[in-house]
Amino acid sequence: MDKRIINFNPGPAALPEPVLQRARDEMLDWAGTGMSVLECSHRSKEFEALLHGAKARLTELLGIPDGYQVLFVGGGATLQFAMVPLNLCPPDGTASYVVTGSWAKKAYQEAGKVGRKAVIAATTETKEKTFHRIPKPAEIKVEGDPAYVHLCSNNTIFGTQWQQYPDLGKHVMIGDFSSDFMSRRMDVSKFGLIYAGAQKNVGPAGVTVVVGRKELLALEQPNLPTYLRYKIHAENDSLYNTPPVFGIYMVALVLDWIKEQGGLVALERRNDEKGQILYGAIDGSGGFYRGAADQDSRSLMNVTYRLPTEELEAAFVADAKKAGMVGLKGHRSVGGVRASTYNAVSVEHVKTLVAFMKEFQRTKG
Amino acid sequence: MDKRIINFNPGPAALPEPVLQRARDEMLDWAGTGMSVLECSHRSKEFEALLHGAKARLTELLGIPDGYQVLFVGGGATLQFAMVPLNLCPPDGTASYVVTGSWAKKAYQEAGKVGRKAVIAATTETKEKTFHRIPKPAEIKVEGDPAYVHLCSNNTIFGTQWQQYPDLGKHVMIGDFSSDFMSRRMDVSKFGLIYAGAQKNVGPAGVTVVVGRKELLALEQPNLPTYLRYKIHAENDSLYNTPPVFGIYMVALVLDWIKEQGGLVALERRNDEKGQILYGAIDGSGGFYRGAADQDSRSLMNVTYRLPTEELEAAFVADAKKAGMVGLKGHRSVGGVRASTYNAVSVEHVKTLVAFMKEFQRTKG
Repeated sequence: MDKRIINFNPGPAALPEPVLQRARDEMLDWAGTGMSVLECSHRSKEFEALLHGAKARLTELLGIPDGYQVLFVGGGATLQFAMVPLNLCPPDGTASYVVTGSWAKKAYQEAGKVGRKAVIAATTETKEKTFHRIPKPAEIKVEGDPAYVHLCSNNTIFGTQWQQYPDLGKHVMIGDFSSDFMSRRMDVSKFGLIYAGAQKNVGPAGVTVVVGRKELLALEQPNLPTYLRYKIHAENDSLYNTPPVFGIYMVALVLDWIKEQGGLVALERRNDEKGQILYGAIDGSGGFYRGAADQDSRSLMNVTYRLPTEELEAAFVADAKKAGMVGLKGHRSVGGVRASTYNAVSVEHVKTLVAFMKEFQRTKG
Repeated sequence: MDKRIINFNPGPAALPEPVLQRARDEMLDWAGTGMSVLECSHRSKEFEALLHGAKARLTELLGIPDGYQVLFVGGGATLQFAMVPLNLCPPDGTASYVVTGSWAKKAYQEAGKVGRKAVIAATTETKEKTFHRIPKPAEIKVEGDPAYVHLCSNNTIFGTQWQQYPDLGKHVMIGDFSSDFMSRRMDVSKFGLIYAGAQKNVGPAGVTVVVGRKELLALEQPNLPTYLRYKIHAENDSLYNTPPVFGIYMVALVLDWIKEQGGLVALERRNDEKGQILYGAIDGSGGFYRGAADQDSRSLMNVTYRLPTEELEAAFVADAKKAGMVGLKGHRSVGGVRASTYNAVSVEHVKTLVAFMKEFQRTKG
């Protein structure tokens, strides 16, 4: 009998239990092949069907418009931080970044590291090097004619999330959606290209989903490593080299699960409900729990909060673990508590956490 | 009841059945964590123990000397084709390649694509663009003072393999071991750096093992993407960003299995035996089956052979599939038959193939 814990990990994170059960059941004989998907050729008709099925399912669920292509790439969002400027910004061009958290800042810095001129369109960094909010539209200043403007949809460490994406007119927006991809509806057409490391909401670590306008994916700059060229991945339908087969398989299973749940409308409703319950408990605690992010910037994926003292925070995390809940320690750079409530974390899991929070406050507060 | 097929896939390829069974059994609750390894934080003590255990096991099994470090990187050998020249060859330096097959040639070409001066130390390419042999030591001409000399240990497509690595004196040798890694003993100290996509002998697609001398891993060149810097991976012990967690887990399980089999001495003996049986059947077929590689260059990992006609080759592959053996079709660029006999392919599997070959020759020959 498996003893499953309640998993609030920030990523790699909880996966839907039915998905894991299916992966388990198919581990030695997948799709009638007599072999594991781990042993299956990426050039086999079974894997090609899986890959195309996953792309079609994603297109359906997310409402990806015509003119976009879906890619699966290894290397994580960290590699995308380099691929975006290297492919989309000419060597003498400028790339513009909205800096709302640690990862957004890393993306900005990476553009400079690979030799592009990177500028900041807006930042919400405080003098203590933390980020508590998403900028107002009027704060975003895109100067000149940058190749694109990059933003990070959800900030895992600080627990902030764009409630609405800005309208930047003619400028091409690029989005890092690693930590809230497929957690709510979105208008893909507002973006030239989006990417998401799978390991929060749609799969395991080791595969990144890229959705981009075909004309952007066709751009090339000189001397780029083959693996870093979107054009190569696009022309070869993510099969230029051996892709992360198992990661793509898991993404396909998770997408099937999302469909079964009722698609993004249903997940968005559920994630809203989880957020109301958890933020409601924080705000209703009489100040014992204090939300770390500004109210209008709160993330539904990473709920960050503080307790009156660091000692209480440590006790909270330790006691929660004893009560069967893990992953609640805040990121080392900010401290406090962080409950990551991705798609696979259920309303019941959040209610269990809230009950624990009330009991903790009653006994230790 | 699982119906397991005999899998001669060239990669992704057969994995040891006990490894798959263990992955299956642990899928919902790994290492007593109450979660899948797919859901586990790469910063958790359980995953760090797994990672360090895998490195220690690899070091023990392969006899990696002091002064080397083991890394796990995403992106496959294709990304290594770029990382090797970008990190190890200065922008104004020269990189030297021994070209013995399609992948060795891609590695050579990639060095040029990323802006390095790449030269050929030896090539065995024929005017028909095929490769049937490994060069003799005297054929290898390393001119000047290249940053390194790169070779590919085993050539999957043409079925050739270095029987003995050359002695290049002061020159730093770099080896692509993707298709025969951990299939036999080797002297790591002859190489400055070796790398291997896991998906042949040691795991699933999506993770690459790199073993390099620490002073080479510390080299840096300007403007490299962070993910492409060996130095970053080395300094952060493969945990700079979220690594391919499940791939590393599978590699760890396969390494445990190799240890249980008796280590590389036992696997080498078994792979030799498989080769003798299969090449023996080819050479003893009175010319019906003809080995595609020169005798002294034959691979124990990819056994390539031809039949009298392409029609017979197609019938052979189709009939073998009906008999429960898959993956035997030669690479599209060379045709014929290819039996990939990596570590997880047993002596019994090879005997079954040989029995089928004899029966096919008797009835169709």
